[in-house]
Order: sequence, then C-alpha cells, then structure tokens
Amino acid sequence: MAPAITLAADKLSAANTGFMLICSALVLIMTPGLAFFYGGMVRVKSTLNMLMMSFISMGIITILWVLYGFSMSFGTDHGSLIGWESDFVGFSGIDKMDIWSGYTIPVFVFAVFQMMFAIITPALISGAIADRVKFTAWSLFLVLWATIVYFPVAHWVWGTGGWAFELGVIDFAGGTAVHINAGAAALGVILVIGKRAGFKRDPMRPHSLPLVMLGAGLLWFGWFGFNAGSWLGNDDGVGPLMFVNTQIATAAAMLAWLAYEKIRHGAFTTLGAASGAVAGLVAITPSGGAVSPLGAIAVGVIAGVACAAAVGLKYRFNYDDSLDVVGVHMVGGVVGSLLIGFFASGKGQSDVEGLFYGGGMTQFWKQCAGVFAVLAYSLIVSAVLAFILDKTIGMRVSEDEEISGIDQAEHAETAYDFSGAGGGIGGGALAAAETKKVDA
Amino acid sequence: MAPAITLAADKLSAANTGFMLICSALVLIMTPGLAFFYGGMVRVKSTLNMLMMSFISMGIITILWVLYGFSMSFGTDHGSLIGWESDFVGFSGIDKMDIWSGYTIPVFVFAVFQMMFAIITPALISGAIADRVKFTAWSLFLVLWATIVYFPVAHWVWGTGGWAFELGVIDFAGGTAVHINAGAAALGVILVIGKRAGFKRDPMRPHSLPLVMLGAGLLWFGWFGFNAGSWLGNDDGVGPLMFVNTQIATAAAMLAWLAYEKIRHGAFTTLGAASGAVAGLVAITPSGGAVSPLGAIAVGVIAGVACAAAVGLKYRFNYDDSLDVVGVHMVGGVVGSLLIGFFASGKGQSDVEGLFYGGGMTQFWKQCAGVFAVLAYSLIVSAVLAFILDKTIGMRVSEDEEISGIDQAEHAETAYDFSGAGGGIGGGALAAAETKKVDA
Amino acid sequence: MAPAITLAADKLSAANTGFMLICSALVLIMTPGLAFFYGGMVRVKSTLNMLMMSFISMGIITILWVLYGFSMSFGTDHGSLIGWESDFVGFSGIDKMDIWSGYTIPVFVFAVFQMMFAIITPALISGAIADRVKFTAWSLFLVLWATIVYFPVAHWVWGTGGWAFELGVIDFAGGTAVHINAGAAALGVILVIGKRAGFKRDPMRPHSLPLVMLGAGLLWFGWFGFNAGSWLGNDDGVGPLMFVNTQIATAAAMLAWLAYEKIRHGAFTTLGAASGAVAGLVAITPSGGAVSPLGAIAVGVIAGVACAAAVGLKYRFNYDDSLDVVGVHMVGGVVGSLLIGFFASGKGQSDVEGLFYGGGMTQFWKQCAGVFAVLAYSLIVSAVLAFILDKTIGMRVSEDEEISGIDQAEHAETAYDFSGAGGGIGGGALAAAETKKVDA
Repeated sequence: MAPAITLAADKLSAANTGFMLICSALVLIMTPGLAFFYGGMVRVKSTLNMLMMSFISMGIITILWVLYGFSMSFGTDHGSLIGWESDFVGFSGIDKMDIWSGYTIPVFVFAVFQMMFAIITPALISGAIADRVKFTAWSLFLVLWATIVYFPVAHWVWGTGGWAFELGVIDFAGGTAVHINAGAAALGVILVIGKRAGFKRDPMRPHSLPLVMLGAGLLWFGWFGFNAGSWLGNDDGVGPLMFVNTQIATAAAMLAWLAYEKIRHGAFTTLGAASGAVAGLVAITPSGGAVSPLGAIAVGVIAGVACAAAVGLKYRFNYDDSLDVVGVHMVGGVVGSLLIGFFASGKGQSDVEGLFYGGGMTQFWKQCAGVFAVLAYSLIVSAVLAFILDKTIGMRVSEDEEISGIDQAEHAETAYDFSGAGGGIGGGALAAAETKKVDA
Repeated sequence: MAPAITLAADKLSAANTGFMLICSALVLIMTPGLAFFYGGMVRVKSTLNMLMMSFISMGIITILWVLYGFSMSFGTDHGSLIGWESDFVGFSGIDKMDIWSGYTIPVFVFAVFQMMFAIITPALISGAIADRVKFTAWSLFLVLWATIVYFPVAHWVWGTGGWAFELGVIDFAGGTAVHINAGAAALGVILVIGKRAGFKRDPMRPHSLPLVMLGAGLLWFGWFGFNAGSWLGNDDGVGPLMFVNTQIATAAAMLAWLAYEKIRHGAFTTLGAASGAVAGLVAITPSGGAVSPLGAIAVGVIAGVACAAAVGLKYRFNYDDSLDVVGVHMVGGVVGSLLIGFFASGKGQSDVEGLFYGGGMTQFWKQCAGVFAVLAYSLIVSAVLAFILDKTIGMRVSEDEEISGIDQAEHAETAYDFSGAGGGIGGGALAAAETKKVDA
Repeated sequence: MAPAITLAADKLSAANTGFMLICSALVLIMTPGLAFFYGGMVRVKSTLNMLMMSFISMGIITILWVLYGFSMSFGTDHGSLIGWESDFVGFSGIDKMDIWSGYTIPVFVFAVFQMMFAIITPALISGAIADRVKFTAWSLFLVLWATIVYFPVAHWVWGTGGWAFELGVIDFAGGTAVHINAGAAALGVILVIGKRAGFKRDPMRPHSLPLVMLGAGLLWFGWFGFNAGSWLGNDDGVGPLMFVNTQIATAAAMLAWLAYEKIRHGAFTTLGAASGAVAGLVAITPSGGAVSPLGAIAVGVIAGVACAAAVGLKYRFNYDDSLDVVGVHMVGGVVGSLLIGFFASGKGQSDVEGLFYGGGMTQFWKQCAGVFAVLAYSLIVSAVLAFILDKTIGMRVSEDEEISGIDQAEHAETAYDFSGAGGGIGGGALAAAETKKVDA
C-alpha cells in the first residue's frame, strides 16, 4: 500500500465525499463552458474547431490521468520534482475504500477531482491558438504537454514533497499550477507558431456573444467547485471562505474591467463583462483561502484592471494571443499569486500574514519563486514542444484552409445551417455551396 | 460578537455546509439562466443589453451585499423595519468559524446563499423594461432599488424581528421578498418610463427560442437550490418536501399554461411551456414547504392558468410589461403566497393549517398582509425611483437608438456575426454595414 | 404504513439526503440537455418540436409519477411483475420524515430521484422520430408508454421482488431499464410510423452543432448524478467508483468513436465526439459499479466502436432512426449490460465476478436474460402502442406540414428570427414571409 493511502474505511465522511463528487462534476462542466466561451469569440468558420480543442481534452487527459498522470502528480515524491506510485498506475492498486491520507474522502474521489483540473488546464491554452492549428497536432500537443509540463508542475505545487509545496508557496486552487501554467504555455506556443492570417487587419468579431456569455456563466458556476472543493471537505470554515471570496473577487473584477473599458473605449461591452469575471476568478483561485472578503475586493479590482490593460499588449507587441489567454490567465494568475504576499490575513487557510497584515515580505518572495519558476518552465518547455511538433508533423493548417475555415478543413462540418426554414424558402447564412452530408 | 452569531465551531455540520454551498452555486447560475431566458425573447438588436442587465447585477449587488446589504437584511433588528450589525459591514467582523445562530452552517455560507437571492431579484425586473433603458441608469437603479427596497423587504420577511416574519407570514423561499417584490417594482417602473417604440404595432418576436429554453432549463435546475436550500440544511424532511413540491408544481403549471393557450390560441408553444414552468416555480416558492404534493399540483395548475391569463392584460390595459415580469412574477407570487392560506397542510414546515385543512382563514389574512404590504411598498418606491432617475439622468435611450438597436448604442456590439462562413462567401444576416472591431 | 417504509427519523443522513437532492437536480437538467442535443441535430424548421418533445416529458411524467408511477415501480411487489402501494398514490401516504427502507434518505428523496429517471427515459425515444410526429400523439404516447412499459420495467429491474432484480441481473443505473428500454421502443415506433420525407435523399444536416455540444455537455454533467446517485448515498466507496468509471468510459468511448470515424470517414467531427461521449455514458450506466477503472476503459472503447458502427445500419436496413437512438442507446445499453458478464471485477458493488475475473459465464447469462426480456418487451409493446395511435388519432403530421416545417404547423413558432438587426436593415435568414406575433 502506498504511503499516501490510509486504509481506514471508518474515516470516510459521507458529507465530504458527496460534496467532493458534486464539486468534481462542477469542475467537469467548466471545460464545456470554456469551449463555449472560446467558441463564441471566434468567427463562425472556426467555431467547431474551437469547441473540439476543449472537448478532446476531456477524452485524452482522462485516459492519461488514469494511466500515469495521477501517479506522476500525486504519487510518492522523488527528488521534490516528480511523483510516482505504482498502485496509481491504471488506478489498478486503488481500492474503493482506500482513503486519501489525512482526509476523509476516498482516493478515487481525490483522483477524479484532480483529473478535472488536469483536463481544463491544457484546454485553456487553446484560446491563444484559435483558427490555425491542425487537430492532430493539437491532440499530440495535449499528450506531451500534460506529461512534461502539467503533471510535474501539479506535483511541485500540490504534491507532498513537491518543492513549491514544501517551500510554502500558497496556491489554493491553481493560480500557478493551472492559470500561470496555461497562460505561459500559450505565450510559448504562439511565439513559435505565429499569428492568424489577417491579424490586426481583419475585424475578427466574436460570432456569438450569447455563446460567450453562456460559457462565462458555466465557468463562474463550475468555478465554485474548483475553488471551494480544493479544501477537500467542509469540516471547518475554510472552504466556505474560499467560496465567498470567489464570488466577491469575480464581481469586483467584472466591475473594474467594465469601468476600465468605459474610460478607455467608451462602452460597457458584454465581452468585457465576461472577460472581467474570468480575470477575477483566475486571480482569486490561488488567493481566496488566504485573504479576507475585503481583501477579495482588492484582488478583484486589481486583477480586473491589470488584465484589461494586459489584453491590449498583443497589438503593441504583435503576438497573436487570439482570445487573451496570456492577458487573462497568465497575468491574472500572477496578480492573484503575488497579492497573497500583501493581503494574506492570517485568518484564512493558515496563519500566514502578508505585508499589509504585519507579515513582512517573506510570503511575497515565496510566491515570486513559485510564480516565476512555473512561468519560465512552462513558457520554455511549451515553446520547445511546439517547435518540435511544427518541424515534424507541422502545427498549422495551410493558409488557404485557415482563410476558408478550419471547421471545414479539419472537421468536415460547419457550425450552423440555417437554410431550409419555411420549406426551402430563403436560404440561410451558412448554407453556402456546401451541404455535404455528415453521416456519423 | 453579534447576537446573531454563535461562536461554536463544534456545531458546524459538514453535510449541511456542503449542501448549502452547492445550493448557493445553483442559485448563482439562475441569473445567467434568467439572462438567456430574457435574452432569447427580445429582438436580435437588443439581445446583449438584455444579457447585461442581468450580468451587471452579479457585479453590483455582490459588492453592495458585502458592504452593507447583509447587515441591513440580516443584522440585528431595529424597529421591525430594518437590520444593522456592524460586524457584518464589509463582512469584516465575521470569522470563518462563526456559525449562523440556530443553524449548523457558517455565517459566511448563509451570507453568500442570501447574496445570490439579492442578485437575482432586481435582475428579474429587467425583463419588463427591455430594449429601452440606458445601461448607466439601470446600474444606478440597481444600487438604489437594492438599498431602499430589497434589503429592507428581505428583513421584513426573513429577518429575526422583521414585522412580517414575527407576524407569521409564511414565505419559504421568496414569494413576497423576491417575486412580488420584483414584479411590483417592474410595474412601477414601466408606468413611469413608458412603452417600447412600436408596442402593439410591431411583431417583436423572440429572436431565439432555443436560448429561451436554455434559460428556462437553467432556472428550473437552479431553483432547486433556491427552494430546497432555503431550509438551510437537511436534518429533517422539510427541504426534501420543498424539493419534491418544486418539481410537481412546475410540471403542473407548465401543463396548465399549455392547455390554456391551446384552448385560447390554438397551439402549444415553447414560449408557453417555458413561461408556464416559471410561473409554477414562482408560485411554489413561498408555498412549497407548507403544502402536500397534491396541494403542489393545485398550486401549479392555478398559477399556470392565472399567469397565462394575466400576461394578456398588458395589451388590454396598455402597459408594456415587455417580457411578462408582472404577469408571471407578481401574479405568480401573489397566487402562491395566498394559496398557503387554503392549502397549508400542517404537515410541512410547521403545523399551520389552511382553510381546506381545518385551519380557518387566519393564515390567509396574514398572507394578505405580507403580500399587499410588499406589493404596495415596492410598486410605489420603485416608481418614485424611476421618476427621479428619469428626471435627472434620464432612463431611456433616444428613440433613434431604440429603433436602430440598443446593443449598438449602449454596448458598441451586436450579438451575432454570421458573416464570413466559407471564406468570405455569402455574408450573414447580421454583417450589416457595421463590423467595427471590438478590442476588449 | 407500507412495508417499504421505515418510520425512523433518527436514521436520516443529512449528508446522503443533501447529496441525493443535488443528484436529483443533476438528473433533471439532463432532460433539457437532451432537448438541446437533439434540437441542434435537426434542421432549423423542426428545432422547437424537438425541444418540446423532451420538455413535455418533464410535465407529463412528473404528474403520472406522483399519481401512480412511483407506486407501480417501487410499491410492494405483485407477482414479480408490478408494484403497488396505496400510500404512494398521489404521494398521499408519505410523510416528510418517512425513510426509504434500508437507506438513510427520506422516501420523498428516493421518489423524486427516480422520478427524474422516468422523465428522461421516454424523452430519449423522441430523437428517433424527429420532424414528423404530431405533438398531441407524442403526448398521449408518453402517457401510455410510461404506464405500460417504463413503470413495469423499472419494477422488474430495481423493485424489491421484481423478477430481474431477484434473479441478480446487474443494472446499476439503467442500462436495461432506461437505455435498452428507450432504444428498443424507438425501434418499435419507427418501424410502425416510417421514415421522414427525404430520408437518404436530402442532406438533413444539424442546424446548430454548438447546440448539440451544449446538450452533450449538460448530459455528461448531469449523468454523474444519474450514475453516482444511484447508490443512494456515500457511506462506502461504491458511488465514487461509479463516478470515476463514468468519466473514464465516457472519455474512452469519445476517443474510440473519433478514431473509428477518422478511419472510416476521414475526419474528426464534433457530432462524433458528442455521440461517442453519450455512447460511453450509456454503456457505463449499468456496468460502472461492477468494473474496475481499466475495465471502464474497455467498456468505453467497445461501446464507442460498436455504436459508431451501429449508427450506419439505418442506411443499410432502411429504417429512419433519425438521431441514432437505436444505434446509441439500445446498442450501447446492450454492450454495457452484457460486458458486466466479462468485466465484473468482484471488487465493486458486489463480489460478483465476470468471465475475465474467474467468475465463469453465470453472470453473463443473467445479463442476457435481463437485456433480451426488456428489449423484446419494449420493442413489441411500443410498436403496438404506436400502431394503435396511428390507426386512431394518427401519429404523423401531413407531408406538407413535415416539409414546410413541423414547428410552424404544430407550435405556431419558428426557432429563430434574426431579422431587424441594425434598424430594419438586412432581413434575416428566418424572417421568411411569416412574422406572426406570438403573444403567450
């Protein structure tokens, strides 16, 4: 039996087990939510590819996690860098009554909750590379990135014995392991594969803002499971504090983003509301267990303004972060992680206090270590992976395919067909020449 | 320490705490659900404004609730009219282990659950004023209405010491505090601001009934948290009874509405199914803890027919309740609240019996007091607020902006862009002249 | 007091009660999810009818279940074939504190959880008969089919005393009672009512694949409640095992389906991803409590390939299973149910072992008995019901109505109206001649 497992059936808490199963389902729905959030933002000709880049992560990462991902992330530590536990391989040595050590939930529950994190993290990257990447290349990238980047980084941050965990870097639910990780990877990949055809020239308006708002709503909803669930139970008040702060920071960031764009661009947009909410969710993810509700307002406001400002940088520095993964997830993750150093109240998940609560700069420097290690590792390794894939199988579809639409080229489908209303009268926006039958 | 708080960590129930956190997430998703329900019903040119009127409530009310709303609603009673508790201001005197007095959940959990109610209630109003209100005016209205109407009324109905609560008015989950309150406010506001351009002349068909049904589905789903969660735990069978009755009344009202419109208008419409379901949900909200499952069928049928009949009144009396907020929420809330006086079985949340169960008219008159006090207060104050805003900053956009579309005028966006399918071939319904780039 | 009820308030588990209420809400949202999954797959002119066939089940079956369905399915057994319990009729003899015998949840909670299963099962059938069935005929079919097929079959499989239950047929959450049952019924009905006008000739492309993916996402999400909730509590690790296996088999089936269609048809489609996921969910539904995680991968892969192959049969054998209900639900249900005979590990819900785990063929033959009895009964009775309805009130709309669009003919609505963007400029895809005002 692995040291990480306690065989103690009588310690199982039905309350925490049930709660964590529901939280796992909530985190699962975030990935379809992300698919809609991204899918609505792209032009109609690449909608399905955008959806599929998220959905395929639900397929591929699930299997990898069972086969070896859980073992690498949460198995017995080796050298503070990686885990391994043969009982976890294929989940084959886990019994249904094994309890996750130190907690009150089955190992299976912990494993499936964390599986959902491993699914959504690489899916986040996809928004940066909209419209232009071969589906097979993306699928292979998922396998490699999860294996070489996500599983180790999750071990560093959350695994017993992981260097960042042991150093005392605070990351409640994934500011570094999830958001900085995905955002930095996005930056690494786009620096290698380049811009969309027509970047900065064509309008590239979101084809369906209601779909974006649906995605934002599902993300906000599921994020409560993501954040509050990360305490793995409700025997004390930390999970509830995290829940409350999640709501508060999200609201504050939405308002801050809207205020910023009203001042800078003259209008309150739905895209701004959605983006601001996500920025707040990202920033509170590492910090929500450490700060007070008033601190959560500060985290949200700062993240909202910082991310709203950051998403404009791609036009200045000419990198095509298509749907603002770097601007929202990397920047929001950095902001949330570092602000712990200032706003940790000492009354949340631990007694660690930040600068503004009399704790000095100690925690801030720890947070910096976690942030920049993950950022640098993910950016560099992701760029290298993209470079290798690009030089071998090729990352991008042809320019013709990109311009005529990746959905047709890669998936042999188009997102909508509004033709045929009223018995063949009319002819819809998307009927086009193509009405090829899809028989699957 | 506030009198409302018991510092008793050992009383925390992990089961009820986890349940209530999930219920809070369920109530949160209702507001995006409402946004889609309303957003699908309006014409395409005002879709985004409709979505934003709900989403902005998630931003503004969250912050108000933290700053002073929770204190006003659930702080120590003053004169049976309003609460105040300095520990609740900014949530700054609440510790993560403080337990809500008399219950088994942290104060934070109760506070965030009730926050979600404060968010959705004013959002409900927005359906009545579709297509024509300035976004800044709506935002300011939200602040004022929550402060002057919602927070006090929630105290009357649910706060210890509130006059309706102490009188024994039964409102399990918000028939008066939420639905009559929002519906009467809607009536007050539209009497002041007037009708849409083209009311009763132009068709104004829903632009996306699938979006309406998505909203209805999310509302139905989330409403289980709204209703069953309002008992704050599952140590007895009252929450489950509420859950069962919620499902039953909703089904019955949907069938009743469909039957009504088939007889009156000759067709079973999706809009009727969605509206009927919401009418049932509204009516069972105050009453579901008091009635039996057969009583819930009665409540549903009566509410379905009453609301289906009521939504036609706007054409007769010439008020533009655009998406039937008055007809469904005010009427449904009144029906559900008053029917408690007849159908309370004495075997639900309390031993109070209605007329049909041998209890006489006592409870009915109490219900009348609650219903009409909230209705009158909300209608009058809301009308006054709208009047003041209209005379100062102005409530309505210009008629030109209304006709050409409030989305473009207020948000600089349009909901859809189906152009560009198949590489520039075609040109979609909404490409129009405008393809202004949104860079946020 | 019914023998099935134990009046023992002190046995109520708040943890399991809360969990099961949330699971019930999760199963409820599956039916709107199914509506969107199916609704996106049909042409735009029959979208609303497709949605309504699912939504109406939420109305009709809820009421039937309260009136007599719960009694027939879970009342005291009569002759191993049917249940009846007068206390269950109208839920009138159930007290809020009555506990479901042998468990820790109120009778009301068990009743409402199972109600959600009774709602979605007949709704599944509707996908096979898209575009062509009168709404009143469908509504009447729902009443008859639930009464004569679903309620008895649920008793056989899950009711104490039911013949399949007593024989030891394993059906954790509905492989036979739900999926084979619905799939076989679909086959029976379409053999009677015939094909859509234009079957195999017209393209009949899905009108909105994003709507299909939304449906798939909601189904996947809700299915966790469906599957893990079927253990009725989390006092041991069986529910969690079921949850884990649900995720794994779904992922594996999605990948398997995509691989199959890439090889056979040359593209990875979103429709294939969605269909594969549902095939995996179906197949793990009976088996997920019996197999190991590696077994779940096997179940998923086999189901993904089998269903992907099966959906092509309709073109060869010329039956119009419009949205692949037979190919996915009947075939997937059979695959999952029979594989228990091979892959039952003896370490899940019971110590029953399948062939590959040393248990011989005993369980396989039991599974065959359950599978083929339900399949044959449902297919034959459903065909007879459809035949009777067709010869009396008529099942199909006229061919003119079918071709011009069932939404307009049966519901007096069309799904979308994109006209009027930009102040009357343009004119949308669906404006058509018809802009009749819907005033409900």
